[in-house]
Amino acid sequence: MAKAVCLLSGGLDSATCGAVARRDGFEVYALSFDYGQRHRIELQAAARVAQALGVAAHRTATIDLRGFGHSALTDDIAVPHNQLSSTGIPITYVPARNTIFLSFALAWAEVLESSDIFIGVNALDYSGYPDCRPEFIEAFERMANLATKAGVEGRTRIRIHTPLLRLTKADIVRLGSELNLPFELTHSCYDPSPEGRPCNECDSCLLRAKGFREAGIIDPVADHAHL
Amino acid sequence: MAKAVCLLSGGLDSATCGAVARRDGFEVYALSFDYGQRHRIELQAAARVAQALGVAAHRTATIDLRGFGHSALTDDIAVPHNQLSSTGIPITYVPARNTIFLSFALAWAEVLESSDIFIGVNALDYSGYPDCRPEFIEAFERMANLATKAGVEGRTRIRIHTPLLRLTKADIVRLGSELNLPFELTHSCYDPSPEGRPCNECDSCLLRAKGFREAGIIDPVADHAHL
Repeated sequence: MAKAVCLLSGGLDSATCGAVARRDGFEVYALSFDYGQRHRIELQAAARVAQALGVAAHRTATIDLRGFGHSALTDDIAVPHNQLSSTGIPITYVPARNTIFLSFALAWAEVLESSDIFIGVNALDYSGYPDCRPEFIEAFERMANLATKAGVEGRTRIRIHTPLLRLTKADIVRLGSELNLPFELTHSCYDPSPEGRPCNECDSCLLRAKGFREAGIIDPVADHAHL
Repeated sequence: MAKAVCLLSGGLDSATCGAVARRDGFEVYALSFDYGQRHRIELQAAARVAQALGVAAHRTATIDLRGFGHSALTDDIAVPHNQLSSTGIPITYVPARNTIFLSFALAWAEVLESSDIFIGVNALDYSGYPDCRPEFIEAFERMANLATKAGVEGRTRIRIHTPLLRLTKADIVRLGSELNLPFELTHSCYDPSPEGRPCNECDSCLLRAKGFREAGIIDPVADHAHL
């Protein structure tokens, strides 16, 4: 069975992406990151989702992005609530995050002799992050094929799979549902309570709620009284 | 003064590269990595060199590449001695190392609002690593400009500077000498003694010795009785 490295945050998108990799016949090597995020509770979700997906291995790499600062996801900057309509690149953007995450995935893929990397980025109902756009992914793939031993020796061609790239959040919910993804194991909130309950007000909660609503599916995680 | 992020390993090449950045008028932000390398003594060299260069800041990011294994620089695989003439990609190659290092540099540059990154890669007297080649650097630069807020908003263009790319090791020694680089502070050996003395037998020691010899300059670090 071909091996694939899948970035797995524990959120709805990456979990659906992992389920697609399984559906497509890959043996999944799930990779999560402890990067000092406020919402570290998502790492527990990632472990639960990895187990539910039946991955071959799940690894959490600890990286030190807090030293570089400047994001509401890692710093002592408040996560904005109820601001889904704001324009521009949001304060929750973490500098070069997907570049760093994909670089680690590339390292692991090289060691596993895998040529397939899955990432659940989305260019439609996304949050305005530059490193979620198709042109970024294409440029990363091109670079990756020049960076690696396998690429240089012409043994393989690295592919960055982005099965969610052109889906709406509702499409993602429908796809996850078709693949029997246990939504109750996922965690999307950027600003959860100490017990891990979603705030239902941050960008990520609002996008998730919109997706479930439009798909006509009940989100087992959301606080429906609140929404 | 324009800010530049410089990758600084503590070796001869990165130290010379940092000296070039200073010569070219940049305020230098030096970035080192603790990636579980055997030759961790180089981190002390990096701190000494950073101080000698008068950098604005020096940061060491801890990253976890050992979990991905498969390199003589991070694993319990013996570093080859006296094998400079061997062909192909050597066992000291660390998967996706420069991709990961440059990704962190990109994150820091973005936070500093710097558009300049320096890396001391070398395509001539190099060790056969794929991620030291000009085509890799060009592809990374292209990707970086699509990955970042500044790139997307058209505010700046990220440049990856590689002043050593087409120099021989002897040219690098001459350049370092012209810039009054204190060679005695640098460390190049992949397999030093517990006290930090170079082995004088690994790829990195042999390349360094060849460079100094051809430049007609005495290396204050090498064990000349041995060579």
